[in-house]
Amino acid sequence: MTSTQRIAAAMIFLLAGAAATIGQTNRSPENAIRAADAAWLKTYVAKDVDEAVAACDDQGSLLEPNTPIATGKKAIRELIAGDFAMKDYKLVWHGDKVGVARSGDLGYTSGTYDWSYTDAAGKSIKDKGKYLTIWKKQADGSWKVLFDMFNTDLPA
Amino acid sequence: MTSTQRIAAAMIFLLAGAAATIGQTNRSPENAIRAADAAWLKTYVAKDVDEAVAACDDQGSLLEPNTPIATGKKAIRELIAGDFAMKDYKLVWHGDKVGVARSGDLGYTSGTYDWSYTDAAGKSIKDKGKYLTIWKKQADGSWKVLFDMFNTDLPA
Repeated sequence: MTSTQRIAAAMIFLLAGAAATIGQTNRSPENAIRAADAAWLKTYVAKDVDEAVAACDDQGSLLEPNTPIATGKKAIRELIAGDFAMKDYKLVWHGDKVGVARSGDLGYTSGTYDWSYTDAAGKSIKDKGKYLTIWKKQADGSWKVLFDMFNTDLPA
Repeated sequence: MTSTQRIAAAMIFLLAGAAATIGQTNRSPENAIRAADAAWLKTYVAKDVDEAVAACDDQGSLLEPNTPIATGKKAIRELIAGDFAMKDYKLVWHGDKVGVARSGDLGYTSGTYDWSYTDAAGKSIKDKGKYLTIWKKQADGSWKVLFDMFNTDLPA
């Protein structure tokens, strides 16, 4: 092994270590965001308004179709409580992508959803579409919803 | 001035300086994202498909209503070209919020839009709603669209 080869081998080792460290650093907040996304879904399955609202940042916004932006806990609570009150309301979503800034304070999840309910005329309505959520890390280390938006894949 | 007051005054000065520095650091990428948002709007006003597509990250996704997620330049081009081909297509948006991660590699814009076109039956359609865009900083320092989503405020 020449001295050049030794230097090259040492550099590869250092780079691999750095890459592993970077991977470790990135994996942790991404998994935390995935867990926050899954925990929020549980509050929707349980139709637990308090916990669903608690998952949102104090300055959070829900951008639901067919209604203006709802910003802040009060407006978010009204929107979620109205949704959960729909007859046979059932919403599930499936995360597909997750990402986080290098600084670990801002991230996102995106995926698809399936939603069903019974309308005022007693008709069963089924919808499917996609969502995008921006997560903000809180002072206590938890991740909360800063923005959440969805829309349908079905024809207009 | 007691020594406690002097220490308190010194701390306030240091904190104000730190806050100003943080503000300076944050303001720069936020303004860059605002500029990228405004530049992307110009490509829609000009109905310039090439430039509108070029504003998107290679792994970017458009989450438009009434169609599945379009990911990657090819799918994004088809979607945008289809939109621009609509008769009397006119879309403008108005940024309201902007934010960026501390690391300056991921940010968002959100606001409202006004959209109008003439449908196949010759009827003028007007829509208004809200949008959410996630921006990713590129290797060359530019900001490109990683996710873009919108939905209507109008009743279903």
